[in-house]
Amino acid sequence: MYATVMHGPGDVRYEQVDDPKILKPTDAIIQLSATCICGSDLWPYRGASPIEQPMHMGHEYCGVVVEVGSEVRTVRPGQFVVGSFCLSDNTCPHCRSGFQSSCRQREFMSGAQAPYARVPLADGTLVATEEMPDDAMIPHMLAVSDVLGTGWYGAWAADVREGSTVVVVGDGAVGLLAVLAARQMGAERIIAMSRHETRSQLAREFGATDIVTERGEDGIARILDMTDGIGAESVVEAVGTKEAMQQAMGVCRPGGAIGYVGVPHGVTLDGQDLFFRQQRMLGGPAPVRRFLPDLMDRVLQGRIQPGRVFDLTLPLAQVADGYKAMDERRAIKTLLTVA
Amino acid sequence: MYATVMHGPGDVRYEQVDDPKILKPTDAIIQLSATCICGSDLWPYRGASPIEQPMHMGHEYCGVVVEVGSEVRTVRPGQFVVGSFCLSDNTCPHCRSGFQSSCRQREFMSGAQAPYARVPLADGTLVATEEMPDDAMIPHMLAVSDVLGTGWYGAWAADVREGSTVVVVGDGAVGLLAVLAARQMGAERIIAMSRHETRSQLAREFGATDIVTERGEDGIARILDMTDGIGAESVVEAVGTKEAMQQAMGVCRPGGAIGYVGVPHGVTLDGQDLFFRQQRMLGGPAPVRRFLPDLMDRVLQGRIQPGRVFDLTLPLAQVADGYKAMDERRAIKTLLTVA
Repeated sequence: MYATVMHGPGDVRYEQVDDPKILKPTDAIIQLSATCICGSDLWPYRGASPIEQPMHMGHEYCGVVVEVGSEVRTVRPGQFVVGSFCLSDNTCPHCRSGFQSSCRQREFMSGAQAPYARVPLADGTLVATEEMPDDAMIPHMLAVSDVLGTGWYGAWAADVREGSTVVVVGDGAVGLLAVLAARQMGAERIIAMSRHETRSQLAREFGATDIVTERGEDGIARILDMTDGIGAESVVEAVGTKEAMQQAMGVCRPGGAIGYVGVPHGVTLDGQDLFFRQQRMLGGPAPVRRFLPDLMDRVLQGRIQPGRVFDLTLPLAQVADGYKAMDERRAIKTLLTVA
Repeated sequence: MYATVMHGPGDVRYEQVDDPKILKPTDAIIQLSATCICGSDLWPYRGASPIEQPMHMGHEYCGVVVEVGSEVRTVRPGQFVVGSFCLSDNTCPHCRSGFQSSCRQREFMSGAQAPYARVPLADGTLVATEEMPDDAMIPHMLAVSDVLGTGWYGAWAADVREGSTVVVVGDGAVGLLAVLAARQMGAERIIAMSRHETRSQLAREFGATDIVTERGEDGIARILDMTDGIGAESVVEAVGTKEAMQQAMGVCRPGGAIGYVGVPHGVTLDGQDLFFRQQRMLGGPAPVRRFLPDLMDRVLQGRIQPGRVFDLTLPLAQVADGYKAMDERRAIKTLLTVA
């Protein structure tokens, strides 16, 4: 088959690769209904993460099971499934405590920007629907796999509750979906930091009550001003840069919580500064598997439409253009259709 | 009067100073029933914190009110009071959310290693008892002011609950009282990291179920081994060094919580490492004021005896010897009697 391989920064190719096959009895092979490009794929694309060998890209996925290994029990060929970008057995102590993204057998999904993909640990990773969803549901189901699940975890880690004041730093797909998550969790005030019109518009539609366009010290001052100098009790950091983390810390009140879901790059925290800020911190790759059944239900019931973050759709063969559009911030997130 | 002044590292003097007086209408003057030396007093004593001018030492205190400013309403001369080492108005939004140690008017207490001391923000800081406590209660009441309150906050920040497994890093007075706090909160297993016989003995008496004498990588391996490779869901870091923080992070399970109450010195955290460990972090100066009424009640009811951490008692005039004994780890904590 043809699939997506990154050979170096800025060098994404749609090229012939081996067909995926069952390697372990716990594997499944799925045919992708659609796939997409993640903001985190831009780290290596931009040279911010090393590329030691050609990388088979893609970790967000939904589709139809075509084959399962001999030990797979919970999914079967013909079923529509969504899985987490973190592969987990869902039985180890960390999984059982709801942190499947720290599963003892954890692997990260790869190779999903392709027509077919191998999903290791299928029983612990995939959730099947009862019926085959309509085509119109596919973008929303696909978004659950990572960006929605990650935004949701960010809001959960930031301890968002009924009536909370929440600040979301980052207007990428994860930040926008953290806004949606905060709204679903009952937040009263949701302040999105965004200076891009299409993104801030979507943030408003997802539930943001306020948009702050200022950044850095000005952005912090603006939000403190809006919150009577108190700051927010919940802050989601959905970027991963030093500047974003500083902004998050600058707007969180003492005793408040920061959920940080952007993979930190070049972020160093001073212990004494962190101590005197007295903010709760919880980050990490999102345990999407914990939230999957609930989030898939919300999508299927039409309560949420997370797939609205896809503002560019391309055929898989044009995946390189999709990376370029996201790198240049012409697109929030690129959906790739599989013929 | 004579009081304690630190002039430089290792240079503590009991010398003549001005008597404290009411400087603001919200102040109170107390006559100390007893006072003591804190582990954090050793940072400047050891040259690990700068001493820019002679420092009037002492921030742990209990005693009898002798004078109040014109605006003080909740305490009056003749009452026995305990206060937090963090001075707070107890009315600002941070105080009202239970984080009095981040009060907008926060000051840190000083000058309490003396017969008399000025307590600013008396209404928001001091809690009076109904009756004058017996002399035997004084060490326990004094301990509430900082070390017990700080150990208690550490256990609370580490989310200790009924049935928890808890690791306490640090066998100073705060660590030992974090053990006591964890026991009071219903922890099932409390592992104290200690290699000093008198300290580990006291840890056991306060409720530790296990003592681990190994440190560093060996200590981490030992605790992982004791917890089926899972780690603890609650970890209290009560030292403040890089090594102690690494130990705390090494034994906390993903999704678990680290309450860090040792003031960090030379601790730097790598954002990406923190992210992938997926541990909750909450530190800071303890909001002792939040816990004061409850902890004073527990002491007066005889349910806890936190003053057992005082294993050296000296007259205030010999305060310099008290510092020396703690610096050389001959004493856990020095109580200073006031004539």
